[in-house]
Amino acid sequence: MKKVAIQGTAGSFHDIAAHKYFEGEEIELICCASFEEVFAAVKKDSKMIGMLAIENTIAGSLLYNNELLRQSGAQIVGEHKLRISHSFVCLPEEDWKDITEVNSHPIALMQCREFLSKHPEIKVVEAEDTALSAEIIRKKNLKGHAAICSKMAAERYGMKILQEGIETNKHNFTRFLVVADPWQADELNRHRKKEIDKASMVFTLPHTEGSLSQVLSILSFYNINLTKIQSLPIIGREWEYQFYVDIVFDNVLRYKQSITAITPLTKELKILGEYEDGKSSI
Amino acid sequence: MKKVAIQGTAGSFHDIAAHKYFEGEEIELICCASFEEVFAAVKKDSKMIGMLAIENTIAGSLLYNNELLRQSGAQIVGEHKLRISHSFVCLPEEDWKDITEVNSHPIALMQCREFLSKHPEIKVVEAEDTALSAEIIRKKNLKGHAAICSKMAAERYGMKILQEGIETNKHNFTRFLVVADPWQADELNRHRKKEIDKASMVFTLPHTEGSLSQVLSILSFYNINLTKIQSLPIIGREWEYQFYVDIVFDNVLRYKQSITAITPLTKELKILGEYEDGKSSI
Repeated sequence: MKKVAIQGTAGSFHDIAAHKYFEGEEIELICCASFEEVFAAVKKDSKMIGMLAIENTIAGSLLYNNELLRQSGAQIVGEHKLRISHSFVCLPEEDWKDITEVNSHPIALMQCREFLSKHPEIKVVEAEDTALSAEIIRKKNLKGHAAICSKMAAERYGMKILQEGIETNKHNFTRFLVVADPWQADELNRHRKKEIDKASMVFTLPHTEGSLSQVLSILSFYNINLTKIQSLPIIGREWEYQFYVDIVFDNVLRYKQSITAITPLTKELKILGEYEDGKSSI
Repeated sequence: MKKVAIQGTAGSFHDIAAHKYFEGEEIELICCASFEEVFAAVKKDSKMIGMLAIENTIAGSLLYNNELLRQSGAQIVGEHKLRISHSFVCLPEEDWKDITEVNSHPIALMQCREFLSKHPEIKVVEAEDTALSAEIIRKKNLKGHAAICSKMAAERYGMKILQEGIETNKHNFTRFLVVADPWQADELNRHRKKEIDKASMVFTLPHTEGSLSQVLSILSFYNINLTKIQSLPIIGREWEYQFYVDIVFDNVLRYKQSITAITPLTKELKILGEYEDGKSSI
């Protein structure tokens, strides 16, 4: 049985993503209160796999998770893209007229702004997690409280769904990374059924004209395709930038050669993981 | 007197940024409840200037504001980078022992996670705005409530500062854009004391090898330097990407020529604004 550390509780979007990614396999969830705890769990137990959100089409990149990943030394071994749909749920015996307060994770609340603005009488109270909000309301029998969470969490905790699909933008996808200890990552890579076709990396470049275009030109000469690029200023080092880059490729040898070719032109190049391009699920 | 539409209320970080940007000038603040309202105000009154946060070193890019800007047709005419420092404040007659609840904007709460986790007994309740939380607590005399807001907001609303600098990461900067109607932007550009040396643009590229490296190579041939690049997948158009790019340059003519040179290689290229590289303030 695989042990998977997630941020959040059973029924959270991390849980859903973990089950979709490991479809057909039995997994034991290790629920963590923070992303730091997820990385600590992976570090402590080399068999542990971590799952963490890294970007959302509406809320943007989770820069902090990028940074945690870079510092942790853990490797990306896979990814999953999940469509995020929120439900407005309450205690089974209650109804719309009873609701005076809504609890959920700040990002979920943000993604449901339009819905919430139509219900100004409901007080918005931030909570640690989407599914946990539902669980607490049910366990403590908090009358008048609603949660915003997944349909799966509502069903799991026996909550009544007052409205489904309350997210403002229906093109709401979150990309989750599957991470592991480097030793475990090597192990998983040896037993892949399909060859890797994607990699994530981070590197630093001097703030000089053309330094990025040189690196990208070399990648293109090796038929490497970018799927994501994001620059981050490095605080305290005003003339350098950090770049997070995701690439896809057909030929693993060409990929390895391209990394050799760009290494001398970059500083602090770090491969964050080599894995299979993930599928999207709804 | 300049009319400046901001999201938030007097004493908010938008207010502070607006006063820093227009230092020495008298400005009339138009306080809006949302970024949509800021753009609506700019559209309705061609003399109106808008000020909006676009990225934060901790929380990342406000992708939604990028999208609002692109759709609005408004032009960027300037920028300001502000160091964000939060204070924990309460009613003047209260003290630490009285506080049971804290109110603030979700992003501010997120930036003070470490501080909040040391005070688990204080209930975290999301509010619309940092400064507004302080204002409401003072006006309604909400005993037991604290707000997280700027020092300026605390002083403005006569609140007692229990602790300053409670943000987790001290390298917390927000970049604000100054936007205006295109007609007004032309007017402002005509009366600049210094020449423009920065521009922001958005364009679409096909998902083919090297399409981005070609564009960046051309920019580098024209001595144009990137200060930011961020890719966004275009939902529903799987094989195309949107890129938000900020550039700086010394020579305005070379900049104009470089745009002419890259236009045929991009799709839907849109210049979001041409302005002066902004200074940072504390």
